[in-house]
Amino acid sequence: MKPVIVVHGGAGRIFKEREQGSRDGVVRAALRGYGILKQGGSALDAVEEAVRSMEDDPHFNAGCGSVLNEKGEVEMDAIIMDGKNLDSGAVSAVKCIANPIKLARLVMEKTKHMLLTDHGAHLFAQAMGIPETPGEKLITERSRERWKKNLEADSNPEEFQKDLGTVGAVAIDSEGNVACATSTGGLSNKLVGRVGDTACIGSGGYADNHSGATSTTGHGESIMKVVLARLILYHMEQGMSPEMAADTALDYMKARVGGLGGVIVVNNSGEWAARFSTKQMSWATVKDDQLHYGIYAGERHTKSVDEALASGSGGF
Amino acid sequence: MKPVIVVHGGAGRIFKEREQGSRDGVVRAALRGYGILKQGGSALDAVEEAVRSMEDDPHFNAGCGSVLNEKGEVEMDAIIMDGKNLDSGAVSAVKCIANPIKLARLVMEKTKHMLLTDHGAHLFAQAMGIPETPGEKLITERSRERWKKNLEADSNPEEFQKDLGTVGAVAIDSEGNVACATSTGGLSNKLVGRVGDTACIGSGGYADNHSGATSTTGHGESIMKVVLARLILYHMEQGMSPEMAADTALDYMKARVGGLGGVIVVNNSGEWAARFSTKQMSWATVKDDQLHYGIYAGERHTKSVDEALASGSGGF
Repeated sequence: MKPVIVVHGGAGRIFKEREQGSRDGVVRAALRGYGILKQGGSALDAVEEAVRSMEDDPHFNAGCGSVLNEKGEVEMDAIIMDGKNLDSGAVSAVKCIANPIKLARLVMEKTKHMLLTDHGAHLFAQAMGIPETPGEKLITERSRERWKKNLEADSNPEEFQKDLGTVGAVAIDSEGNVACATSTGGLSNKLVGRVGDTACIGSGGYADNHSGATSTTGHGESIMKVVLARLILYHMEQGMSPEMAADTALDYMKARVGGLGGVIVVNNSGEWAARFSTKQMSWATVKDDQLHYGIYAGERHTKSVDEALASGSGGF
Repeated sequence: MKPVIVVHGGAGRIFKEREQGSRDGVVRAALRGYGILKQGGSALDAVEEAVRSMEDDPHFNAGCGSVLNEKGEVEMDAIIMDGKNLDSGAVSAVKCIANPIKLARLVMEKTKHMLLTDHGAHLFAQAMGIPETPGEKLITERSRERWKKNLEADSNPEEFQKDLGTVGAVAIDSEGNVACATSTGGLSNKLVGRVGDTACIGSGGYADNHSGATSTTGHGESIMKVVLARLILYHMEQGMSPEMAADTALDYMKARVGGLGGVIVVNNSGEWAARFSTKQMSWATVKDDQLHYGIYAGERHTKSVDEALASGSGGF
């Protein structure tokens, strides 16, 4: 099996001044994940590495750069899933951790559970020796500005919600195993303790070697209502291509509950899709040593991996 | 549409000395929920009332009577879902609250979110004026004994996990709306902050007027791996009866991830099922003014509602 990785940096509205950073960030993440796959690494390692790269990148709403809750704090959700055995690990409402996706993987590998939340997740991180990152270090100037603006009497919070930026990755490795990973800071000015789709298996992501893997982004509550990730894989089990499954599920979400979003998908033959009903979604994929990426509907740039690595300013 | 309610008091092993209490508890809950439906009340009100009745009953692992986590505390999860619009509310890892299902419903009705966890859920409960119940009041002598036994060096925690007792209800009302509700104390001696299937939409429950409603119980992590509730409704969307959809999904969970559990289901024609792959599951249903209930596979007692109400010692 030829390895494939697809990543997204969030569906919604991407402000003009952030387009280049978003493009660079998803390209870097895809190339890093692909590097692992090319060396015979697992889909699980590849998606974790890709997501971790975007958590560390302040352009995205995950890890450093996460949006702030109503109290001005960062609270993050993340999930990772192994399509081989349906094992999964997730964390919800975690603070003061640089890489929630790493903690989610430890939940999967070191406990009998699948989801740890808030205080308990914090205790678990301590037990695993994960260093505490001061909350301030995860907050960018931009996140704080947005938070303040939303508190103003004449703010339009709906407008701000459109600038999402959850990150995710799906991959298939040389052994045919699929995996997914998703990580987010959630909704701007959310209530303390709000958990969205990302931490909920079947909503924020799902991976099954029998069909494929998917990671979702967009309006979390709508994604949860239709259990979007699992819905896409059902459509693929019924014979749909990743692209058709993604479009059918996104159309259904819009028609049934009025929600917009985006998804990345890979099936167990290595076919992939990056589709969205929002105005934009930053995405990148690598297959057959070719990099493809875009942000707007219909936009698709292609480069060889060698060319991308040579031109990459971000230490791809 | 003739209203129907189905409730469960948990799948797993029900110790002999608790059988009568479990039977009485599910019968009482079903009759209470049915009482609401008969007066023209909504499926949502009926399932909330049925679950609340079992949360207040120390025979079940939900509300008062919840099992304890590794630190000897009660931490509870609950979800409620409205099949009309796919709205849902849930809470995870909440403490010191008598009725988590009530809080889940407030999340659905009073916020733009669907899931609040731990500290944030506690703040929300305070804001809603829900009185704090001292943690001790939710702990029964039996829960504490089990917790202590599990801490002993020669304990067999696997054995104890089989005595589950999550509670749930599904209903269809006279207007054809379906709803589900599920509430649990989770796994005995779980890690602090462990969230199971109950709080995850699509795993612990799902309701959709287009097909029906279901509530699940059993090994939470297995239920999450297969997103069991949503799976059952997919089968029904493909034309299966509630019973066949339940059995097919439970068989799949056993074959694919080795997990056992139980489910209650109602479809949008009012057909129902209560099925389990565990040794036992306490369940009760009322349809056409007839009460049916049981605990063992194949066990099914039938009474008229009038007879049940007349003989009910528990103030049905």
